[in-house]
Amino acid sequence: MNRKETIYEMTAAIKADSFRMAALPLKTRNDALEKIAASLRAGAKKIFEANRRDLERAQLEKQPAPLIKRLRFDQAKLDECLTGIESLLKLPDPLFKTLLKRELDQGLVLHKVTCPIGVIGVIFESRPDALVQIATLCLKSGNCAILKGGSEAAETNKALYDAIFAAGMDAGLPEGFLTLVESRADIDSLLKCNENIDLLIPRGSNEFVQYIMNNTKIPVMGHADGICHIYVDEDFHLEKALPVIVDAKTQYTAVCNAVETLLVHKAAAEKLIPSLVSKLEEKGVIVKGCPEVRELVDCEPAKDQDWTTEYLDTVISIKIVEDIDEAISHINRFGSHHTDSIITENPESVEKFMLLVDSAGVYHNCSTRFADGYRYGFGAEVGVSTVKLHARGPVGLDGLVTYKYRLYGNGHVVSDYASGAKKFNFRDLE
Amino acid sequence: MNRKETIYEMTAAIKADSFRMAALPLKTRNDALEKIAASLRAGAKKIFEANRRDLERAQLEKQPAPLIKRLRFDQAKLDECLTGIESLLKLPDPLFKTLLKRELDQGLVLHKVTCPIGVIGVIFESRPDALVQIATLCLKSGNCAILKGGSEAAETNKALYDAIFAAGMDAGLPEGFLTLVESRADIDSLLKCNENIDLLIPRGSNEFVQYIMNNTKIPVMGHADGICHIYVDEDFHLEKALPVIVDAKTQYTAVCNAVETLLVHKAAAEKLIPSLVSKLEEKGVIVKGCPEVRELVDCEPAKDQDWTTEYLDTVISIKIVEDIDEAISHINRFGSHHTDSIITENPESVEKFMLLVDSAGVYHNCSTRFADGYRYGFGAEVGVSTVKLHARGPVGLDGLVTYKYRLYGNGHVVSDYASGAKKFNFRDLE
Repeated sequence: MNRKETIYEMTAAIKADSFRMAALPLKTRNDALEKIAASLRAGAKKIFEANRRDLERAQLEKQPAPLIKRLRFDQAKLDECLTGIESLLKLPDPLFKTLLKRELDQGLVLHKVTCPIGVIGVIFESRPDALVQIATLCLKSGNCAILKGGSEAAETNKALYDAIFAAGMDAGLPEGFLTLVESRADIDSLLKCNENIDLLIPRGSNEFVQYIMNNTKIPVMGHADGICHIYVDEDFHLEKALPVIVDAKTQYTAVCNAVETLLVHKAAAEKLIPSLVSKLEEKGVIVKGCPEVRELVDCEPAKDQDWTTEYLDTVISIKIVEDIDEAISHINRFGSHHTDSIITENPESVEKFMLLVDSAGVYHNCSTRFADGYRYGFGAEVGVSTVKLHARGPVGLDGLVTYKYRLYGNGHVVSDYASGAKKFNFRDLE
Repeated sequence: MNRKETIYEMTAAIKADSFRMAALPLKTRNDALEKIAASLRAGAKKIFEANRRDLERAQLEKQPAPLIKRLRFDQAKLDECLTGIESLLKLPDPLFKTLLKRELDQGLVLHKVTCPIGVIGVIFESRPDALVQIATLCLKSGNCAILKGGSEAAETNKALYDAIFAAGMDAGLPEGFLTLVESRADIDSLLKCNENIDLLIPRGSNEFVQYIMNNTKIPVMGHADGICHIYVDEDFHLEKALPVIVDAKTQYTAVCNAVETLLVHKAAAEKLIPSLVSKLEEKGVIVKGCPEVRELVDCEPAKDQDWTTEYLDTVISIKIVEDIDEAISHINRFGSHHTDSIITENPESVEKFMLLVDSAGVYHNCSTRFADGYRYGFGAEVGVSTVKLHARGPVGLDGLVTYKYRLYGNGHVVSDYASGAKKFNFRDLE
């Protein structure tokens, strides 16, 4: 049997299990979460040992320091994971929620009820704690998850998976609730299983996400880019603008919600730019400016391609604009519809920006770095979506469910309504 | 300038207008709907004349009778359209709805607010009343619409479009609110405009919908098939089963929500099948049965491919199953996740069917033909979705909106929370 058949058959079995998962009551799912927490606690020593082997290999292979930092899974990381599971336990059930209950006619009642999406494939990067987050979010929302982690973290991922899977079996979940795929080659096989996988969530580089999108018929929820903007309006407070911009650029640069381009109203430029640039340069940030910016400070020239570049680094591009309209047009044209912020004291500008900027997050007087499931109070996230359909922005439990229409009748036929013998009498219940 | 550049530039201009559309208050959108109703009334003569020319051409070209029937646009059809606009006027605003309002910390408040999707391309079949329905649904939900109708209805569509567009201009809508594309070749150009079009809704044959899905990066909401099932359980009432099955098969056969396969519990077969088959044959339905069915009645043999065939005609396949589990497995494996119904008096079977059948519509003791936006009380629909993400089943106003996260702060930075100087204090407001 060749490898492709194996993966296809595996996903078909998971699909069959997904219908059983969809019927599990909250109690079973929460019991499983508690058992998973206990199993991770009990297996801590094994997990840390596996992580030490991954770290040693990464050091031997001279992997870059940030990767090694992300790879580390120690007691502090485990405690974070356990806190995450505790908060997930407290969240209300995302399933079996009635979104609409409508009597269509006597004895004919329509219910719109949430249910799991089904089988979700998540491909994620080196952080092993992501495995715990994703596995538990998918479980709480009644989905079967197929996970592929980064190869650097292979041993840690396997140890975490073993602990979680054993706890799930102990709690009586169907076997297909969680599957770990370990080889890079299996990804291409998974991409062909569109009959059995309902959603793919790739997390990684732009090129990788684009590759996934271009090579599968499975719906993909992911972000292609994080080109976030801050726009400083005419009427602004310097003591808010400076820390917010510095935070958005420097608090953590290698992430999608860091700011890449700053737009400044021409009337705000003289007050803001010199003091901002000196603060940014103190933090080691390289500034690239349009010609008008370079009249105010000494910096590198920004080229056209800078407006569409996600630096993911200590680099920022700055452009002076005529007014808020030019800022909004720039953001909608060059941005990636992720998260954009306005710094202003003018309520009309706030409203205009929030209405007209076409992004998942539109912020006022705060850092773009807040775009994150944990910071939104979702407990955790499986990723940040920059597609506009289904789920936008940080995706927590609510983004992992869909709904069904249940219609309860008593022998009702359409011909009675087509002939006029009966009439619909729509009435929302509850 | 070649044609492709024209279409690309056209969609770029519509995209720019879509941001203005997103900011229009309900009053402006409702005023425009009222003006559209008046304009259609005033232009009735012109529209009927255009329709006469389309009908004459269709007759000359010897188009099939059902197509000619669907093509007709007379006073009765106009009245239906006007009633549709009236009910749309009464529906609450799908935009600017606050789905979540959460204080993250003092002075930092997150709002999840509905907004339009943006630019929606709809490709629809010969019924000209679909143009009015789609245009007004997109307008009420603040979206710009690009429409491509069937060539048989070209003159009627143009007359309807002219009346609607003039009313929209009169109401002060941006020009891009509604665009009619008239040539088949333009569809391929539209498929390439993924930067400017947010969603495509193709309505038509399976082959056509599949062609669209395979040839664009734009998200597609559509249904690929409508293979709907009715399952008759062990404990059922014959006087409910017979009319429901006859209605689902014969009330209108050329539609996606007509039943194609009947599954019958082995203990129900003897009581149901002979009387059902004679009723169906009275209505001219051809029955194809599994070997066990053919022991009870004289009918054609069902082949494997019958279980995956959408007949759209007076044909039905019937299979006897061991139990409800086999029925559910059959539906999940061979169905199209559209609408499936169970006929039973057993409440446990109802619950099991509704939980485990993975379809947009799961029905009890009623006809699959109820799967329709009008019958669900949505006023109208742009189509029926069998994809699981974003919108499922009949898609009305709610399926045409997405949401944004607005975050209002006062100089808030993430570093304060990362350092522990501040703590999140999640509190849902309202």
